[in-house]
Amino acid sequence: MSATDARAAASNAAATLERVRSESPLVQNITNYVVMNTTANALLAVGASPAMVHAVEEVEEFVGISRALVINVGTLSAPWVEAMRAAATRAAERGIPWVLDPVGAGATAFRTGVSQELARLRPAAIRGNASEIMAVAGGSGGTKGVDSTQRSADSLDAARELASRLGTVVAVTGATDYVTDGTRMVAVSNGHAMMARVTGLGCTATALCGAFLAVEKDPLAAVAHALAVLGVAGEMAADLSHGPGSLQLHLLDALYTMDERVLADRARVDWGS
Amino acid sequence: MSATDARAAASNAAATLERVRSESPLVQNITNYVVMNTTANALLAVGASPAMVHAVEEVEEFVGISRALVINVGTLSAPWVEAMRAAATRAAERGIPWVLDPVGAGATAFRTGVSQELARLRPAAIRGNASEIMAVAGGSGGTKGVDSTQRSADSLDAARELASRLGTVVAVTGATDYVTDGTRMVAVSNGHAMMARVTGLGCTATALCGAFLAVEKDPLAAVAHALAVLGVAGEMAADLSHGPGSLQLHLLDALYTMDERVLADRARVDWGS
Amino acid sequence: MSATDARAAASNAAATLERVRSESPLVQNITNYVVMNTTANALLAVGASPAMVHAVEEVEEFVGISRALVINVGTLSAPWVEAMRAAATRAAERGIPWVLDPVGAGATAFRTGVSQELARLRPAAIRGNASEIMAVAGGSGGTKGVDSTQRSADSLDAARELASRLGTVVAVTGATDYVTDGTRMVAVSNGHAMMARVTGLGCTATALCGAFLAVEKDPLAAVAHALAVLGVAGEMAADLSHGPGSLQLHLLDALYTMDERVLADRARVDWGS
Repeated sequence: MSATDARAAASNAAATLERVRSESPLVQNITNYVVMNTTANALLAVGASPAMVHAVEEVEEFVGISRALVINVGTLSAPWVEAMRAAATRAAERGIPWVLDPVGAGATAFRTGVSQELARLRPAAIRGNASEIMAVAGGSGGTKGVDSTQRSADSLDAARELASRLGTVVAVTGATDYVTDGTRMVAVSNGHAMMARVTGLGCTATALCGAFLAVEKDPLAAVAHALAVLGVAGEMAADLSHGPGSLQLHLLDALYTMDERVLADRARVDWGS
Repeated sequence: MSATDARAAASNAAATLERVRSESPLVQNITNYVVMNTTANALLAVGASPAMVHAVEEVEEFVGISRALVINVGTLSAPWVEAMRAAATRAAERGIPWVLDPVGAGATAFRTGVSQELARLRPAAIRGNASEIMAVAGGSGGTKGVDSTQRSADSLDAARELASRLGTVVAVTGATDYVTDGTRMVAVSNGHAMMARVTGLGCTATALCGAFLAVEKDPLAAVAHALAVLGVAGEMAADLSHGPGSLQLHLLDALYTMDERVLADRARVDWGS
Repeated sequence: MSATDARAAASNAAATLERVRSESPLVQNITNYVVMNTTANALLAVGASPAMVHAVEEVEEFVGISRALVINVGTLSAPWVEAMRAAATRAAERGIPWVLDPVGAGATAFRTGVSQELARLRPAAIRGNASEIMAVAGGSGGTKGVDSTQRSADSLDAARELASRLGTVVAVTGATDYVTDGTRMVAVSNGHAMMARVTGLGCTATALCGAFLAVEKDPLAAVAHALAVLGVAGEMAADLSHGPGSLQLHLLDALYTMDERVLADRARVDWGS
């Protein structure tokens, strides 16, 4: 990609981030217990307004006041599935963008089945690692617990097919993140290896996708920008960190302080011009 | 308020904190998933002994060994409501002070209804933002998710009325916190804007109210002192922080190290003499 | 113990840690809401691969791909007990080591009963404070909430008897940690008093025992090494910390960076030669 394209991509990512900050969209999360605190903090750090609301008694009503919905199956159980189904259906009906994180799809029949069912309820985007995306697409994912055993590049065909079939955007994250709507394919090459030693940064990526989908109509751009912002924040944090404890702290600070100049320096978003 | 009054107020807050540290009261929490870890850490940092116990099978038995109870409806679901009701009833019967945090009251019929029902079970105190307190009082709160859209000063009439009607103390927190028992009104003007970018610091305020209610018989003083201590800790933390990640860390350290001198310098508790 | 024995013990602990890092075992956790995030982060920091999976629909299937299982009763409720029972039974059948953390046993009849029942399902190890181990063994634990009121040395007889009766390893943690298989008794004298002001470090100890049991066949050694590694990390962290907020951060960094040299300097593991 040319230097001009790179600058434009970084500038667009910065503009989307700025809209999250100025509009502070309410983002509803039906997510897993492990990351509820950390993804709420990441959403607050970029300027969004998170709410963790999952009771079947109120989940649809709450969708009505939200600007985006995040559904993450990380710590699944039967009552939650019912709430996820109801909230996703309502969001799709109302045109409220929602994003699916099929954590651990492929690891058990239960979570593969639930993830595939939810994927058919018209999410604006799906984000997972290579194994998870393969499993949602119907292939054999080879998941080892919640960590991917597939190289993300290997799953790009599955991602493209899934995106086309469902009319959604699919992101396969890894050392390089790939985002596709079935036709276009964007590569985001930010991040740092130490991020894999902090729990739930994949879930954080999905949560940020929710916030960016709330303010940006093109879901391919929204997801690519969210992944670039998180990856750059991870790099900034790694520069200051001695381990995963300090990385997590500096990552939140970096999301809070990030500006267009930093993104122009660091963001590597390739629209495959 | 006079300088003498200000010094006395700070000194009283320090004395209550010192009693939390020396008595290390067991504080039972039925709280939301997002803040279980962070409110437990805040309670530990001030010297209390937190326990997160909510199963209906044991919740009443556990009230019997606790010195205070915190009920927070943040991530409500039907089985938890049953446990909250049982625990609150038992605490009121036994004279164990309990504090209600009606997170998101006003946002859905479910949580408004549950919050109003629990408020009638004789809490020693209720703490919320302006929207939440308005909703519990029966007005139209205009909640946007879990963040307030009402200025706290606007809700003072509702707080006073609610406190009088229920015979409780009501705290409306915001840029300035107001605490009332229906007659008296205390204003606490501590804290820092960046605190709103860390999830669950309102819930942390409520948890600290629980610890302070365990050792201080006057609930108006207990709540005012807890809010002052948290606000001062937030200011101390903000001085050292580059963003919400570091703020959260330094806040716990500040709660742990706070002493009377710091409170004398910083606490702004106005008893409206 | 001789200097030679001390060096050998530290070297063995370092070797076990190195195997966790190189093998990155998948460790399944059915644990409490308070510590899900922090114990996942501790497992990641030592190089293991944590998964928090507890739904009864998938818990047994997941055991089949895990190398160790951690069961922690901290925030117990009836549906979880069913999943714990199923997972523990399956793990024992398959020869997958599992470790029990009977958080708060002794505090209520519900959690004492569940802890005693789970203890009979052939765990490789049980870790608790003195009160909890006394309660599991059937004595009167005198638990004050989740914090021990018994000196750990007082409960060594109970630990030895429990270990012999169940054919398991029992660890009683406190200022000094004691680990026994009913015959041998290992003392680990690491750690720092400020660790008690961070929630869930006992649960973190148990989680690390799970990771170490996955790679080390002698459960007595696995547990002793896990406790030494955590204790040394706590000391390293305390050297850098002003309070419990910074302690938690530096603890994760210390687990991540720890090497044989640090363990040789700091580890105090006495096999009572």
